[in-house]
Amino acid sequence: MEISDLNPHLLTAEYAVRGPIVIRAQELEKLGRKIIYCNVGNPQALKQKPLTYIRQILSLVEYPDLLNFHETQKIYPPDVIRKARHILKMNPHGTGAYTQSAGMPFIRETIAEFIMKRDGIEASPENIILTDGASKAVQAVLIALMKSPNDGFMIPVPQYPLYSATIELYGAKQIKYFLDEDNSWQLSEKILEESISKAKSEGINPVSIVVINPGNPTGAVLSYENIEMIINFASKHGLSIMADEVYQDNIYAEGKTFHSFAKVMTHMGIKDIPLFSFHSVSKGYTGECGHRGGYLEIRNVPDEVMAEFIKLQSINLCANTVGQIITYLLVTPPQVGEESYELFIKERDYILGEMKAKAEIIGLGLSSIDGMEVEIPHGAMYAFVRFELPHTEDITKMTESERLTYDAKRDNDYCMSLLEETGICVVPGSGFGQLPGTLHFRTTILPPRNEVEELVEKIREFHKSYTAKLKSNSYRTV
Amino acid sequence: MEISDLNPHLLTAEYAVRGPIVIRAQELEKLGRKIIYCNVGNPQALKQKPLTYIRQILSLVEYPDLLNFHETQKIYPPDVIRKARHILKMNPHGTGAYTQSAGMPFIRETIAEFIMKRDGIEASPENIILTDGASKAVQAVLIALMKSPNDGFMIPVPQYPLYSATIELYGAKQIKYFLDEDNSWQLSEKILEESISKAKSEGINPVSIVVINPGNPTGAVLSYENIEMIINFASKHGLSIMADEVYQDNIYAEGKTFHSFAKVMTHMGIKDIPLFSFHSVSKGYTGECGHRGGYLEIRNVPDEVMAEFIKLQSINLCANTVGQIITYLLVTPPQVGEESYELFIKERDYILGEMKAKAEIIGLGLSSIDGMEVEIPHGAMYAFVRFELPHTEDITKMTESERLTYDAKRDNDYCMSLLEETGICVVPGSGFGQLPGTLHFRTTILPPRNEVEELVEKIREFHKSYTAKLKSNSYRTV
Repeated sequence: MEISDLNPHLLTAEYAVRGPIVIRAQELEKLGRKIIYCNVGNPQALKQKPLTYIRQILSLVEYPDLLNFHETQKIYPPDVIRKARHILKMNPHGTGAYTQSAGMPFIRETIAEFIMKRDGIEASPENIILTDGASKAVQAVLIALMKSPNDGFMIPVPQYPLYSATIELYGAKQIKYFLDEDNSWQLSEKILEESISKAKSEGINPVSIVVINPGNPTGAVLSYENIEMIINFASKHGLSIMADEVYQDNIYAEGKTFHSFAKVMTHMGIKDIPLFSFHSVSKGYTGECGHRGGYLEIRNVPDEVMAEFIKLQSINLCANTVGQIITYLLVTPPQVGEESYELFIKERDYILGEMKAKAEIIGLGLSSIDGMEVEIPHGAMYAFVRFELPHTEDITKMTESERLTYDAKRDNDYCMSLLEETGICVVPGSGFGQLPGTLHFRTTILPPRNEVEELVEKIREFHKSYTAKLKSNSYRTV
Repeated sequence: MEISDLNPHLLTAEYAVRGPIVIRAQELEKLGRKIIYCNVGNPQALKQKPLTYIRQILSLVEYPDLLNFHETQKIYPPDVIRKARHILKMNPHGTGAYTQSAGMPFIRETIAEFIMKRDGIEASPENIILTDGASKAVQAVLIALMKSPNDGFMIPVPQYPLYSATIELYGAKQIKYFLDEDNSWQLSEKILEESISKAKSEGINPVSIVVINPGNPTGAVLSYENIEMIINFASKHGLSIMADEVYQDNIYAEGKTFHSFAKVMTHMGIKDIPLFSFHSVSKGYTGECGHRGGYLEIRNVPDEVMAEFIKLQSINLCANTVGQIITYLLVTPPQVGEESYELFIKERDYILGEMKAKAEIIGLGLSSIDGMEVEIPHGAMYAFVRFELPHTEDITKMTESERLTYDAKRDNDYCMSLLEETGICVVPGSGFGQLPGTLHFRTTILPPRNEVEELVEKIREFHKSYTAKLKSNSYRTV
């Protein structure tokens, strides 16, 4: 077997978040180098402690015999024991049994209640599917909505490459729309219209628009008005909306609020735009990435369409049970008066407080570097940092595609050198997409505070020396 | 949005194991009826107890603070504590962090050692990918090997419908080959040759052959010679092999042994047939379906092909960590002399002993029913039971396709009536495929022993009355 025997769509799919720079980082680490992994939103790999409440309950539901030991009463707070017993009662087969395809019914019900409470709107458990993290849910929706290789999905640039990779893998079309960096990465109606017109003129059939809010990699938090504009745009063009809302609990900027698409759409009285909303236990303050939990909520589709989504999930049997249970705990945190409440709030607020502080350190620190520019991230777990480099080739003679290749090589080289020289692992902007002619990298804000401070200083020093080196080579072929 | 707006391949994909009969069973259960779920190999939903060893370790790795309580020493055996500490040492980020795309390196290493020990052959951790159960691994291989909609995968009939559903979903071709019911469901070279010739004559390009051993739904255990024949067949036709070996620990018949494709291929000195082998924590004696753990081993492919499979896995980030850890425990059970050893062996042998006993009760019981025929299953967790019904229409006037529809309706009606009248939920043979003109259903052997005995008697009674009813209606349009 040769590589040419594989699915050509697999070969061309790219997933930079775990690409060559990350693979090189793992090699260096094996050789004993200290690596600061800022390539992926993986909080617990960067010393974020899991919430005690979640892990205590998991230990009990994994090994229910613990509940029979009198020692257990000494170790666990009463509300944790009650909650574990409740889960075991509602899911008597335990964590080792497949659940219904869409997930445990009682969890679907509490998710619906969570949405109703969060947004003040109606929600139905019948329209919720528990998934192995948001990634699997996104993939499921993409494949379900693809009627032909000519169908197009509008995706932001920059975007989390799950979208481009999956669309490429399944053989449909990407319709890229640029986010407005000068306007805190909001969406622009003008750009959306230009993008869809261009796609249509190329014979592409747009079916859905993907929006990531809060934004990955941008850290943007969309305003209520921006979301209204997007919904009107989708309505005008007959698109469904895929709302990636996994960072809904990660908002740091004063005055910014998370508005779900479900809420805004309901306020607008719109009932005919299919909406697919994604949530996850991997982000927020839980950061339980390794457990692969999340849910998909589907609105404004007939029952028979919903049934097809459940059938699709049934081919995977069901989402893993522990991920389902963490999703349950995400939507039913301890309440005032319960024994775990104080510790839970303390741990949660510490995590979110640190993220906010680190977003500021990174935003202020990196933007103070000569030739580097970034706002303090408003939300999510990333800064998408714009930087400038002296040219090493004559760009005036390049075609558009030569220029793209040249820029991609420039940000890749930059990030690879940053890794080799400092041990800092970030992802080049070309892995997410960027406005032609601009250069970026994405870093997470997740390392411990002292490492984030160190990271800023290391990047400052590196950027200076790298720029100087390039300058001395300018206009020579690399 | 209407159903016609969805991917047509999704609409035509069928997954009978969780199809309309199962949905009806869930409805009846909600109304208070007692249902015996024999539709899916879900042991812990049918009162199989999880292994204490596994669950004790999971509780500790989910809540490592437990290790700091002196009470823990009283509750857990020392080897369990040691093993949990080892896992936490080897995976210091804990269960909440994403792992490397292919899984935790130390687990990949122990899986390679497990294969070497099991088969007496070489194995490399670099060729092993931890997956969310075997289903996800199968889907990944199918999509990676699909170069065009004209590529065909040889799949057994009857088969576990994951294969047909996934091939249909991704838009490639199924090349069906019948298993030889009269020869304990072994593969027949003649049938394989006929099947591939027919596919080629239809312009289909065969790329791989799927073999399920031990068989689902057949319960067959393939002989060494049968596996040699299949490997030679694959070699002759330039096919890769997908070996679904998730039931390797479920063998009940005297004199039958599990032979892995990796082992037989190595003995034959063959190094150029790509081999994809699947294993899972859901079956065997662990039965940890809900945790979605398993692995894929790939042989005889160049490194760059392996890299593409890891990239594909990276788009999903990684398999869930708990599933990975259970896979680790599956391949490193407690050893003689360790404190948990005796209990582990006792629990394991009880589970496997009960399965063997229940396979006999079902095989002997159902085959003693007039008009019903089945061998005692040699392995796996199912009996694929052949049965006869009086005709209700004149089959002599039917076209081939009318006959297929007629038979599918007959076994579906039969299974639905069985459910409504007895609460027993089995899956019609047409959901797996069967020789035209024959009727089957698949039942698991998993309910507790007394329920299995009850199930046989209920089916006996039902079959008699259903047959009588049909006879009185024979040759009238239903």
